[in-house]
Amino acid sequence: MPCTAPSPRSTIKRKSQRAHYDSASLHAVLDAAFVCHVAFADAGSIHTIPTACWRQGEHLYIHGAHRGRMMEALLAGECCVSITHLDGLVLARSAFHHSMNYRSAVLYGRFEPLDDPSAKAASLAAFVDHVSPGRSPQVRAPTPAELAGTVVLRMVLTEAAVKIRNWGVEDAPDDLGHPVWAGVIPLALTACAPEPDTLCGAHPQPALPAGLKAGA
Amino acid sequence: MPCTAPSPRSTIKRKSQRAHYDSASLHAVLDAAFVCHVAFADAGSIHTIPTACWRQGEHLYIHGAHRGRMMEALLAGECCVSITHLDGLVLARSAFHHSMNYRSAVLYGRFEPLDDPSAKAASLAAFVDHVSPGRSPQVRAPTPAELAGTVVLRMVLTEAAVKIRNWGVEDAPDDLGHPVWAGVIPLALTACAPEPDTLCGAHPQPALPAGLKAGA
Repeated sequence: MPCTAPSPRSTIKRKSQRAHYDSASLHAVLDAAFVCHVAFADAGSIHTIPTACWRQGEHLYIHGAHRGRMMEALLAGECCVSITHLDGLVLARSAFHHSMNYRSAVLYGRFEPLDDPSAKAASLAAFVDHVSPGRSPQVRAPTPAELAGTVVLRMVLTEAAVKIRNWGVEDAPDDLGHPVWAGVIPLALTACAPEPDTLCGAHPQPALPAGLKAGA
Repeated sequence: MPCTAPSPRSTIKRKSQRAHYDSASLHAVLDAAFVCHVAFADAGSIHTIPTACWRQGEHLYIHGAHRGRMMEALLAGECCVSITHLDGLVLARSAFHHSMNYRSAVLYGRFEPLDDPSAKAASLAAFVDHVSPGRSPQVRAPTPAELAGTVVLRMVLTEAAVKIRNWGVEDAPDDLGHPVWAGVIPLALTACAPEPDTLCGAHPQPALPAGLKAGA
């Protein structure tokens, strides 16, 4: 992906100083995500539906069940995919300059299906490893029937834009004396203590995905 | 809002045991959100763009700048809004039964503008209080020029669906002996230590929104 906007519709016009179009920025936003929002047209309406996602190379992957409305619609036309990480609440002295810190990506294109069962199995293993690194060889692998009942789709990352705000308050000079706390409340998606299944034996706890903060 | 699906397009068909259509469930998902994804059609493409949001009564509110593409498109037609909270990674013994815990809402309708400056100011004050309860009377209020440059839109909550998964692993009986850790890694959006602006005096730290976990 080039370092300039790849198309007019993916060009960020509002607050363009927050725009990034390079692969490294895009990969970083996608690799930190477990969920994306997929927007598509179906039966005269627009829909935007959350679904799990993962990246392999220059593709974003999603999966679903055969005969689902979204899977059918995505095979029939273009869509837009959006991913957002909320990183902070920016509390300014003026109501007007309140903001949020975030990393977001918006992708345009068309999903293609993975038809080959072994390619499908490999991509689903990559998904398990995205959710818990190194886990895929430990779990019971999909059966042929499970693979056949699962649709895996991928979209090439050629038309995308990243938007990032990661700095402090930007009050106007005249407001700096206003007597109220100003600053950033950082936010992070945090992993809490794992909750083993009641039937779970004494197995080692799974690895957390890279970048996920471990909390209490 | 009734407790059944309000329309065919908002009816959850996949995993319908996770569906909720009552106001209390919808309000709870919206009130925990700072960001939504808004999907709309413009110039022959579908877009889904993240933007800040808040609820007042039976409306979801968003705001933006005059002359923005999204604001113009939203005034011209229907859209779909989606909000997702990721609450956990569900690690099953079989690859196939891996899942995620989440609360999501999908809304359909058309945004209407708030034209009256005092109604606009009141809704922006509600937004500041959503981000930090009790903060709106403490900050410097919007000027008439700031109000005039801000578009506030709202959508009535008449056509919406909520989907919630909040339970443990669901492996098949034959897989229960598979020797791997199984359970849930709970996830939570957590507030980290506030970072005061370098020019900030000794003001009391702001309140955290209800439901936001306070971390290290």
